[in-house]
Amino acid sequence: MKNRITDLLGVTYPIVQAPMGWIARAQLASAVSNAGGLGIIETSSGRLDEVREEVKAMKTLTDKPWGINVAQAFVRDPDIVSFVADQGVRFVTTSAGDPNRYCEALKAKGLTVFHVVPSLAAAEKAIAAGVDGLVVEGGEGGGFKNSRDVASMVLLPLVASKTDLPIIAAGGITDGRTMAAAFCLGAEGVQMGTRMVSAAESPVHRNWKDRIVGAKETDTVFLNRQGPGPALRALRTEKTSRFELEPPANIMAEFGNALALYFGGDMEASIALCGQVAGRIDSVKPVAEILQETVREFETVMAEMSRRYVRAAEPA
Amino acid sequence: MKNRITDLLGVTYPIVQAPMGWIARAQLASAVSNAGGLGIIETSSGRLDEVREEVKAMKTLTDKPWGINVAQAFVRDPDIVSFVADQGVRFVTTSAGDPNRYCEALKAKGLTVFHVVPSLAAAEKAIAAGVDGLVVEGGEGGGFKNSRDVASMVLLPLVASKTDLPIIAAGGITDGRTMAAAFCLGAEGVQMGTRMVSAAESPVHRNWKDRIVGAKETDTVFLNRQGPGPALRALRTEKTSRFELEPPANIMAEFGNALALYFGGDMEASIALCGQVAGRIDSVKPVAEILQETVREFETVMAEMSRRYVRAAEPA
Repeated sequence: MKNRITDLLGVTYPIVQAPMGWIARAQLASAVSNAGGLGIIETSSGRLDEVREEVKAMKTLTDKPWGINVAQAFVRDPDIVSFVADQGVRFVTTSAGDPNRYCEALKAKGLTVFHVVPSLAAAEKAIAAGVDGLVVEGGEGGGFKNSRDVASMVLLPLVASKTDLPIIAAGGITDGRTMAAAFCLGAEGVQMGTRMVSAAESPVHRNWKDRIVGAKETDTVFLNRQGPGPALRALRTEKTSRFELEPPANIMAEFGNALALYFGGDMEASIALCGQVAGRIDSVKPVAEILQETVREFETVMAEMSRRYVRAAEPA
Repeated sequence: MKNRITDLLGVTYPIVQAPMGWIARAQLASAVSNAGGLGIIETSSGRLDEVREEVKAMKTLTDKPWGINVAQAFVRDPDIVSFVADQGVRFVTTSAGDPNRYCEALKAKGLTVFHVVPSLAAAEKAIAAGVDGLVVEGGEGGGFKNSRDVASMVLLPLVASKTDLPIIAAGGITDGRTMAAAFCLGAEGVQMGTRMVSAAESPVHRNWKDRIVGAKETDTVFLNRQGPGPALRALRTEKTSRFELEPPANIMAEFGNALALYFGGDMEASIALCGQVAGRIDSVKPVAEILQETVREFETVMAEMSRRYVRAAEPA
């Protein structure tokens, strides 16, 4: 499989791991890169000292390409551009902020820059800022979201119809079938978040993985649509069900005990960001297996579609 | 193009028009059937006397197959089964209610019955009730919705993975690209609602069509998630923006002036049900053109995918 995403990222498979705060660190990201996809190291935890150690670890764990995400709302260090450029990565995603802020400086350092966008207006702004590509993120995905969420089935072909830049699809992607659908809609790569949180190499507590495996497709909540602060999609728990009915005054303050949930396994201690695809994930698997199954299924689906519908399309 | 949906429905193209209340009547439905798709006559207006006249009109306007939708929450007439069976249609969709209620009786009359489902649990219930197929409806679509909405990118492959019954995809479908994506996700047919509301033959007021054409992908609101009464997705207007912040006590009462909006063009008189795909519709077109463009684009996308990704999948 070769296309602009495999070329730009230097990967075997155009499958990217999403940059979940605290989770997207060396253990998980190196597994993704070693399996032929692109691991990404997060900065949305805001802990650049820790991130620096993770970056060092990456260099010992993999010799394959990997990337860094600059989560602009969470990393306000003006040296972030130098920090990223010094790590020897060639690919960076920017998100949660104005694409003009770092794009030019990152590109001046020779980096390939993709900006994460949740709407056509955001995509147009990123394109004008000079990005090399877009991560187009549908509202069914987990994490911090645009308050006016738009599903991948609508957003992806809309953005693709307005630009020739390469697109990585995020939101709802978890296997080869969804990867094939995303490609039909105009993407050349996919990003997986919830699927990677549930992977064997993910550092989160077993309780969280078990809850993803046990979740139904209706077991997420969309919180804080009216602000203040970011909207988000999370796993339905007692706490988040309550927040759905009675929004907290400061949603970000509710992440205070994130580590007790993420790594301590207390699912009511904080908010577990999670996409609707949790309802499609039914076991914890090693990253390499996830990627291989995804690519195999992608090829099977494309071959089946070709057999069923392409021959019939030829002139009679 | 031939598959189980074209066979079961007796149509040239596996494209179905959604049964919008008041709108899915003879003028629009006959145009869809005459263009090679399947027009459907609504019953959700609850006006069976009027529907009877529309059915008579259908027989003069088309000799192609068409169907009827039984919107169970709105049609409580116990004679509805005989009514539908007497019209000479062979295809019926049931929705907004328990699939067990009419399935057996409709099938006993020789009808092919598809039930509309917004979740896996609903799909499993419909399958157990003995339906012939499913309309799987993603939360990005317009109209009355499950309060826990799930996007097509997640719901469609989830349901498809649990059943061999034929599936018609609804929610987010508006062209050949989205049809191709839906087929990759497991569907063999698609249903279009908002696209058909905006069609030249749709009977709604020009103001409504213009608002669909002018809408951004972020210009819908999801209302009444906490009930009482049904949740719904509608076009963002002054009224519905207000409802988003301050839910009305009785959402159904707000449809009291539906006709003033639907046919009088007063966009603040009622609630204009509408899917996110409004953001992808940029002109009012005749139904035949919509269907032909959809099929042509579907074939183009499938051929492109085959050329780019199937050859590479063969053993080296």
